[in-house]
Formats: sequence, C-alpha cells, structure tokens
Amino acid sequence: MDLNTLQEGIRQGQVRALAKGITLVESTLAADQKKAEALLTALMPSTGGALKIGISGIPGVGKSTFIEAFGSFLLNDDTSRRLAVLAVDPSSPIHGGAILGDKTRMEELSVHPRAFIRPSPGGGAAGGISRRARESILLMEAGGYDTIFVETIGVGQSETLVASMVDVFLMLQMPNMGDELQGMKKGILELADIIAINKADGSLKEAAQRAKIEHEQALKLVPAEDKPTPVVLTSAKNKEGLPEIWNELRALVETWKKSGRFEQKRQDQVVQWFERELGEQIQAIAAEHPAYQGLFKEFEAKVRARELAPSVAARTFIKSILNVGQ
Amino acid sequence: MDLNTLQEGIRQGQVRALAKGITLVESTLAADQKKAEALLTALMPSTGGALKIGISGIPGVGKSTFIEAFGSFLLNDDTSRRLAVLAVDPSSPIHGGAILGDKTRMEELSVHPRAFIRPSPGGGAAGGISRRARESILLMEAGGYDTIFVETIGVGQSETLVASMVDVFLMLQMPNMGDELQGMKKGILELADIIAINKADGSLKEAAQRAKIEHEQALKLVPAEDKPTPVVLTSAKNKEGLPEIWNELRALVETWKKSGRFEQKRQDQVVQWFERELGEQIQAIAAEHPAYQGLFKEFEAKVRARELAPSVAARTFIKSILNVGQ
Repeated sequence: MDLNTLQEGIRQGQVRALAKGITLVESTLAADQKKAEALLTALMPSTGGALKIGISGIPGVGKSTFIEAFGSFLLNDDTSRRLAVLAVDPSSPIHGGAILGDKTRMEELSVHPRAFIRPSPGGGAAGGISRRARESILLMEAGGYDTIFVETIGVGQSETLVASMVDVFLMLQMPNMGDELQGMKKGILELADIIAINKADGSLKEAAQRAKIEHEQALKLVPAEDKPTPVVLTSAKNKEGLPEIWNELRALVETWKKSGRFEQKRQDQVVQWFERELGEQIQAIAAEHPAYQGLFKEFEAKVRARELAPSVAARTFIKSILNVGQ
Repeated sequence: MDLNTLQEGIRQGQVRALAKGITLVESTLAADQKKAEALLTALMPSTGGALKIGISGIPGVGKSTFIEAFGSFLLNDDTSRRLAVLAVDPSSPIHGGAILGDKTRMEELSVHPRAFIRPSPGGGAAGGISRRARESILLMEAGGYDTIFVETIGVGQSETLVASMVDVFLMLQMPNMGDELQGMKKGILELADIIAINKADGSLKEAAQRAKIEHEQALKLVPAEDKPTPVVLTSAKNKEGLPEIWNELRALVETWKKSGRFEQKRQDQVVQWFERELGEQIQAIAAEHPAYQGLFKEFEAKVRARELAPSVAARTFIKSILNVGQ
C-alpha cells in the first residue's frame, strides 16, 4: 500500500489502513520512520477532532468491563459516534507488558463496526512508547474516531504519561481500599479529573459508598482549580453509573472549553511533547551521525570514567556542537 | 564561601559545606549553575565510593521509622560508617510535595554525628528533581558518606526514578495488602532487589507471614536474573529483621560485584543520565540562544498550529541546527 493510498484509506475511516498506519509509526526501521513522518505530516490537518479520555485503574478494578460497558453506552448513545481504544502500558520497565492484549476481554466492542481497539505495543523505553501512543492517537483522529479511550494500568509512570496525552482523565478506584491507600494516592488523585468507584454492586455496595466519602474527603486536601473532582459510583458489570460519568465528563469539558482551559491544556501538551522529542532526537543523531559521533563518544567515555558529571558533560557537549559560548 | 573552600570543606566531611554545596546544585540561577558545574567537576574524582540504597514504601508502611531504625543499626554496626539520607519526591507532578520535610521524624539520625539528612527539594519538573538528586548524591559521596539512603514514596514515577540512581533497591511493603494489590505491583516488584514486609509485629504478625508467602508467589511470576528476590519480615518499631535485611543486602552486592553486574549497572546509570541530560540541555539552549531561538520558535509555532506532529518537528529542527541531511 503506497503512502497516498494509506493516507486516503485512513481519512476515509478504513480500519485496515488505520491499523497499517499505526504499525508504521510503531516501527523502528529507519525507512518506516521516514514514511511515518510523511504520513503524519499529511494527516495533521485532519487531527484534533477527538475527545481523548484517559482511563486508569489497577488490575482487579474491572477496567476491561468498564471500558466495554462505557464504550458500548457511548456508541448507543450517539449512533454517529466512533470510538477508538488504545492501551498504553510502560509500567513494567524491565520486561515490558501488554494490556488489552486479549481483545476478547471486550466482546462487544471488539466486533462493533464503529469501534477500533489497539493493544499496547509494550516494551521499549518510555519515550518510545509515549511517542508511538501519541502518534497512534493522531492517526485515530485522522481516521474520524471522535472519542478515544487511552487505557492504562494504575501504577508507575503510566498514569502521568497518559494524563499528558488526553483531554480528561478518568480514574477507576476499588470500593474496598483501606484508608492508608488513599493517602498514597494523593499525587495520583491530583491527576484525576473524574473518579469512578467501580464495583459498587452486591456485597461491595456499602464499601463503595464509604469509599466515595473517603475519596471526597481526601480530595479536599488536593488544591482544586475549579470545583472539586467528581466522584461517581459505578457498576460496569450492571451497567450502572455510566450516564452519570458521561454527564460529569461532558460538564467538565464544557466548562473547560468556555474558560479556555481545554485548548490551553492541548497546547501545553503538544509543546511538552515537542520538547521531550528534542531530547530523544538529539541523542539519536549525536550517537549515530559521523560528524558528532566522535565527540559524543568522547564525552560518553568521560562520563563512564567518572571524570565528568553526566549533567555537566551533556551541557558541555551540546554547547560545543552548537558552537555557543561556554 | 569561595569554591575552593567549599570543595575542601565537602571533601573534609564538613556538614555545613555539604549542605551549602547541595543548595548550590539545587539552585536554578545561571551563576549558581556555573559554580555548581565547577564544584562537581572538581569533586568527581572523590565520588563513586558509597553504597546507594533506594528505600521505597507508601505512607503508612512505616518508612521513617524503618529508616531511623535501619540507619541507627548500620551506624552502630560499624563505627566508621557515615550515612546520608536523601529524599526524592517527584510524585506530585502538579503541586510538588516534600517528604522528609520534618527531620524530627527521625529523632536519632537527625542528631547523629555520622548521619546527614537532606529533605526533598520538591516541586519542579521530574528532570530537574532527578538531576538535583543525582548531583546531591555525588556531593554526599565526595563528603565521605559511604552509605546513602535514597528515600521515595511508593507511587508514580518516583520508584523508577530512584531505582535508576541507586545500587540496590529495597521496597517496604504492608503486611495487610489484599491479593488484588499484589497484581498491581508486578511492574514495581520487578524494580525491587529486596522486599521487607514491615510492621511484622503484634496483631499484624500473622498477616505479615501471609504477605511474605504471597509476595514470594507473586515474585515467581517475575523473571529473575539471579536467585529470587529475598522477602524479609521486619518490625522497624521493635528493631527486628534489620540484621537480616543488611545480610541480604550485602550478599546481593557481593554477588553482583563478583559477576560484574554491580559495575555494569552503575555504568548504565550514568550513561542513561547523560542521555537524558542531552535532551534537557538542547531544549534550554535552543529556547534561549539568539542563534537558535528564532528557528525554535518557528517550529514551536508549527507544533501549536498542528501543522507538524511534535515528533516530526523535533527531528526536523535538530537535523537543521546540526546541518545533517534529511
């Protein structure tokens, strides 16, 4: 498939073209990277149209069931809506891990004509995973998906990472976490725009109600920019609480759009992504290009020999290849 | 205090000089950064001599009590030993947070003549916090501290960050975490070199024994490079399990030194630090230097206008300022 066909296919919403495009941006081959760059640049004008929702939660919280139920709810709620689900899982820094590996976890969504599910590529450096995820999201937007779930497990750096690539961050919580755990989650709670206490059904219903109150109290300790973070009881299994989540989500987005915060956040996100990429790219080029390789290796050797602190070596190297004064 | 006096003071183990040096590397003023660079370069030959131990655990696990008890144990165990404790807390990305802010949490260590405690600077970007922590560790090593604890809370990206700057990573776990939480911690368990189930006393003793078995089973799912990660029961409150932790720690370090893994890990760490710094530095210079500022702002504008994907913009910008072909 040549680039033009691929690009047209993605724009027309063809699932196969989108899958191929994502495979291209995930590739580490130099030739593929050039193609991926051209594809992205061609598709950029068609991006930016989706509402990107981060969904996080630890294993056991019922995340797959929630995504299946909430996704189906949204697709039924508006029959023109198209939903893409992307999983991002850099949480296992050593051996890599893949969530959403088994599409059958989402029986209904995986066969729905207006849904597209992409498992986590897994493995690799956080920078690489993050780039692939962000570029995949751009392609999904160009493919006409107006709602994108970015799923991540609630651990490690994954939540911070996903929060930095979505418009709204929804956090699923267990109904029966102890008090001690609430404290630990303070830093994470700050990332959440909406909290769903899931599994609020059967024997856990009362615990969920207590957890809601505990969360609301814990959130009082977190400085809020607008109104307090909403905490909603859900039972993905019984399909309960889903319209409430959607209403809270829409209300938030509407408030942010009015105040300008929505667009500001998006601007900040792309600029930060750009800045992070500068680092990745300088490194790749410095290590490989004949003109810089020698000096790079020299500085690297000084770092290894503990002659220079890495921070000092980096500053000196950059200044010397850019010919700027010390 | 001029740089020579400062440098000599640190080398002679003067606490005031070390504190001043760390304040210097923490400073964001350009003039201070130049001094900090000179100080670091002068002290580099005196670094590398400490065993750096990461200590992580969520609030409620008894981390302060553990550090106080384990630190005191080590100082009594060897009367020539000098211990420095540094806290790293980038876990609260929005508002910053400081752990170890209250030295009185560690009554014995805070007044011990052979101990030095430095709270987290808190706030700022993870890159900045990480650099300050790494540079502070270098100064502590130059100050003759042969054992360094790097404390972090068990949440967010902080554990991965701290694991990347220490020789051994010790993780404190609660005795009464549910099964569900064990799963969530898989990615984190991989980071742990030793696990201490703390609070293994009083009414929690039995739960701790169960937790030990659960951890050992969970660890079986994590591919181990050497022997399985040791799990030790401790009661910091009753000063129990501390020699066992120390023995496991020493055994690990000895094995790694024999196999070459210890030095390899240190090499990898400084090289990765160097690579990360390249990104931070290129960004700082590109955004501020007159020769590059214009082009940088141009690319940034294209990113903001969604004309270029941030990854593509970064690659193109770097290639053009380095004059390397497309």
